[in-house]
Amino acid sequence: MTYCVGLMLKHGMVFMSDTRTNAGVDNISTFRKMFSWDVPGDRSITIMTAGNLATTQAVISLLEERVKAAQDRNPSILQAESMFQVAVLVGDTLKEVIADHAEAGQKADSGFNATILVGGQIKGGDHRLFMIYPEGNFIEASADTPFFQIGETKYGRPILVRAFDAEMSFDDAVKLLLVSFDSTIKANLGVDLPLDVRVYKADSLSCDHEFRIEANDPYYAAISDGWGGALREAFGRLPDFDLTKFSD
Amino acid sequence: MTYCVGLMLKHGMVFMSDTRTNAGVDNISTFRKMFSWDVPGDRSITIMTAGNLATTQAVISLLEERVKAAQDRNPSILQAESMFQVAVLVGDTLKEVIADHAEAGQKADSGFNATILVGGQIKGGDHRLFMIYPEGNFIEASADTPFFQIGETKYGRPILVRAFDAEMSFDDAVKLLLVSFDSTIKANLGVDLPLDVRVYKADSLSCDHEFRIEANDPYYAAISDGWGGALREAFGRLPDFDLTKFSD
Repeated sequence: MTYCVGLMLKHGMVFMSDTRTNAGVDNISTFRKMFSWDVPGDRSITIMTAGNLATTQAVISLLEERVKAAQDRNPSILQAESMFQVAVLVGDTLKEVIADHAEAGQKADSGFNATILVGGQIKGGDHRLFMIYPEGNFIEASADTPFFQIGETKYGRPILVRAFDAEMSFDDAVKLLLVSFDSTIKANLGVDLPLDVRVYKADSLSCDHEFRIEANDPYYAAISDGWGGALREAFGRLPDFDLTKFSD
Repeated sequence: MTYCVGLMLKHGMVFMSDTRTNAGVDNISTFRKMFSWDVPGDRSITIMTAGNLATTQAVISLLEERVKAAQDRNPSILQAESMFQVAVLVGDTLKEVIADHAEAGQKADSGFNATILVGGQIKGGDHRLFMIYPEGNFIEASADTPFFQIGETKYGRPILVRAFDAEMSFDDAVKLLLVSFDSTIKANLGVDLPLDVRVYKADSLSCDHEFRIEANDPYYAAISDGWGGALREAFGRLPDFDLTKFSD
């Protein structure tokens, strides 16, 4: 399993992904699911992946190869002229890889599907965030739906729905994501630290902050320990229920 | 979809279920998913169902028929001598119904599966809570796992995990369930009010409180409206994140 979230803020974007992969509970590993391409002054692109690891690694490798081989005639993520074109490129690559694996004969139990979040900005355009489906098509975040989640999305969704604000600071956005990730990590063994984080400030055309939150991070521990108490306090401040008023 | 929760408290049990059923988003109905059998002084049994509606209705009808036809030789939920026997009876009935439907020829897309929560107390035994699987086998709630959810369980789970306390009052337990249901209702169109509630006080051997919370209930509205603000306050009281300390 996996959990990745991309938040679209007025003044930029924040990305967070976990690093746990598993094929059964007795076969777990740590793999990076966040990838980036930065050309300062020209573009900053972040990709996060969920789904079949062979598929997502193949997609990233193909995107990387095309970046490196200058003579390669394929369109490159570094040459695309807009974030829309980047999304088309990633979608096409994803669709190709899945089709390739699927026709290889033997069927896997869980399929070769994957879902990808792509966000960033290219000079001359706005910062944009896309969610790309296994079929290669995609949707874009908007003011109405300002964040996307992929992987194990349900446990961490209520707090995002209630507390997200497109004008919140980057600090608050990272904190919000940590609460959402903590709820998910507590409930699903397939999602775990370390967490990769990237913060992109609109129009900077460079990565502003990129770091990893390790399993023993003291701030994460403070959030994780504090949230239970904070929730119970919040619960206590809601109006009390009175059974005697409802009984028949 | 469906959402039902049974809470096992030291001094009793609280049951809550929604009433929304759907076969596609354009085919929704309201159906009761909570059923009960009370013989004051002898037993109080509550059943909640999730899954294929034809299956769950058939199970409940079979249990009902066996209760009503005194000459019927089948074991009856009113004659079972312990909650364990009730769980076995419900499990066998569920397994039979599914097997019956499954061999009827044409396969349905989504299968005929269902999951059932059974809780209650029979004179001479403790109050007990079981979760019954489509295969007819079951597990029992314990001090380590003091509540069971069926249906759309993920959105409403984090608050239960964080705020449940086996010694909480019935009033607080109902309030906690309402918060959990509100998070689920906000996220999944297949779960909705009205909500059915039953409260069973240990050793009372009768139903102590049974009522329905309607869509326009003012207390539910107060919880639903208040929880967003309470969460944001709780979030605000967590230690602040400082990006500058994490940047590379």
